Amino acid sequence: MATIAVPNQVSISDDAQALYKACKGWGTDEKAIIAVLGRRNAAQRRQIRQAYEELYDEDLVRRLERELSGDFEKAMYRWILDPADRDAVLAHAELRKSSHEHPVLVEISCARSSEELLFIRRAYHARYKRSLEEEVYDYTKGDTRKLLIALVSAFRYEGEEINKKLAKSEAKELHEAIKDNKFNNDDVIRIITSRSKPQLQATFNFYREEEGTSITKNLPNKSKDEFLETLRITVRCFKDPVKYFEKVLRKSIQRLGTDEDALTRVIVTRAEKDLKEIKELYCRRNSVRLDDAVDKDTRGDYKDMLLTLLGNEV
Amino acid sequence: MATIAVPNQVSISDDAQALYKACKGWGTDEKAIIAVLGRRNAAQRRQIRQAYEELYDEDLVRRLERELSGDFEKAMYRWILDPADRDAVLAHAELRKSSHEHPVLVEISCARSSEELLFIRRAYHARYKRSLEEEVYDYTKGDTRKLLIALVSAFRYEGEEINKKLAKSEAKELHEAIKDNKFNNDDVIRIITSRSKPQLQATFNFYREEEGTSITKNLPNKSKDEFLETLRITVRCFKDPVKYFEKVLRKSIQRLGTDEDALTRVIVTRAEKDLKEIKELYCRRNSVRLDDAVDKDTRGDYKDMLLTLLGNEV
Repeated sequence: MATIAVPNQVSISDDAQALYKACKGWGTDEKAIIAVLGRRNAAQRRQIRQAYEELYDEDLVRRLERELSGDFEKAMYRWILDPADRDAVLAHAELRKSSHEHPVLVEISCARSSEELLFIRRAYHARYKRSLEEEVYDYTKGDTRKLLIALVSAFRYEGEEINKKLAKSEAKELHEAIKDNKFNNDDVIRIITSRSKPQLQATFNFYREEEGTSITKNLPNKSKDEFLETLRITVRCFKDPVKYFEKVLRKSIQRLGTDEDALTRVIVTRAEKDLKEIKELYCRRNSVRLDDAVDKDTRGDYKDMLLTLLGNEV
Repeated sequence: MATIAVPNQVSISDDAQALYKACKGWGTDEKAIIAVLGRRNAAQRRQIRQAYEELYDEDLVRRLERELSGDFEKAMYRWILDPADRDAVLAHAELRKSSHEHPVLVEISCARSSEELLFIRRAYHARYKRSLEEEVYDYTKGDTRKLLIALVSAFRYEGEEINKKLAKSEAKELHEAIKDNKFNNDDVIRIITSRSKPQLQATFNFYREEEGTSITKNLPNKSKDEFLETLRITVRCFKDPVKYFEKVLRKSIQRLGTDEDALTRVIVTRAEKDLKEIKELYCRRNSVRLDDAVDKDTRGDYKDMLLTLLGNEV
């Protein structure tokens, strides 16, 4: 469930005017901007952008980029965009990082619906005049590239039907490959990138039943191995997205110096989806409320923005 | 341009009634069925199916399957479906053939728009409760599988922009691979399956300019090599779809015993697109009108159906 607190009554033109007022003249009223945009859903934010453009002949996104700065600007910029467009921006930015981690590409492939992934690929065309696949080809290599290309190109079947016999035999195929350290085996990539999510769930369940341990526990933990790390987060993201995102949040907060990129990404992309469940798991797992952890770890307008998206009055 | 002759005035309910009358009682009035459905576009055919269902509480497609037979039934069944659904049916049937040729998979990947390919993938889910990729994985193997999976999963950028430098360097990459007989090289597959169509055109043009011969002429003609044949028709389908389809028609008619599957496929899938251009090229290339060749090579209702789709009164 979503965490953002959308009021029952919303006036799009009032919102556009409030934002104009908050940006006008010297200084910016960040609190007013957060109070409006932090409590509107994706459809409303789109309408506000349109109304603002019509009223003031100016692009609201550009205006906010000029008015805001730092982590707050980044969070607001991510938030104000349409979800598919935001995911295209996140993927584009991740590909240009020198890091060997690909959480965004994995998340858009595994924690979005098949139709949502299509919208992201379309948004990528519109924004960058190239296909997402072309970019993945350009910025990754080897087996990781093979896996990522197949992940972002997939259009998985979304029915609930499960083929148990297939799940059983593919659980065995996965186990054989892992046992022999052949993680980059073509069949591993085929199974992970082509099966429907319920089918993969069934396969992972058979894996645990047959082998007495989960597939994630069976994948060796070599954080320097790019392919293995990408495969691991792919499997985790499919198995239990809430658990996966809780861990991303936990690591982003626990490490020395908060990982604002990861923190912002999870809160912004999940605030209208399952951030409530992620918050609950975070609290159970860490004995501290996510809101309190964010409150302690961040500052200023950035903090206010995140806490608002988490459903707080600030 | 399309060849079918759609009247200016069409009454969907009159059409549904005419079809009902043509199917009622003993015997079937095939000519009446062709006169209606052979002259309606995809949107009209869909409306006729809906109107028929509402009026007679019966599925028109099923009814026609019962009433018709042989090549005529097959052609009518292909024709009456929505284009994306028809392509899903064609792909499904091709995958189950023992043949080592994959013209349907290549055509739906190369001679449809990116959005049309998405519709086909959606139609595949709806009809077969699996993804097209899963089926390609199941029914093909080796390098051909690698190529076909990437082809059907692609979502190519559709802008007209061309990167000339890239086209030049990729023309060279293709030439190196072909020169060394490394047709199944990862880079060949990457280029062919990820670049936009205008970009590929530019690459093929540079290839010819630099090498003095076209890429298709440079690909060795080994009809027994499944991968090479699939690659060859992929390149031809991108380079010039009209020329490609003219050749499919020519071969289907010229061979001993007409290849009805290929003949039907090209006429049915291109009748609302570019069959006029294909006909013109056919006439220039063979010094005989396509309509006359079809008239000579086919019989009965099947012939009437094809000639109607080619724009004739029968």
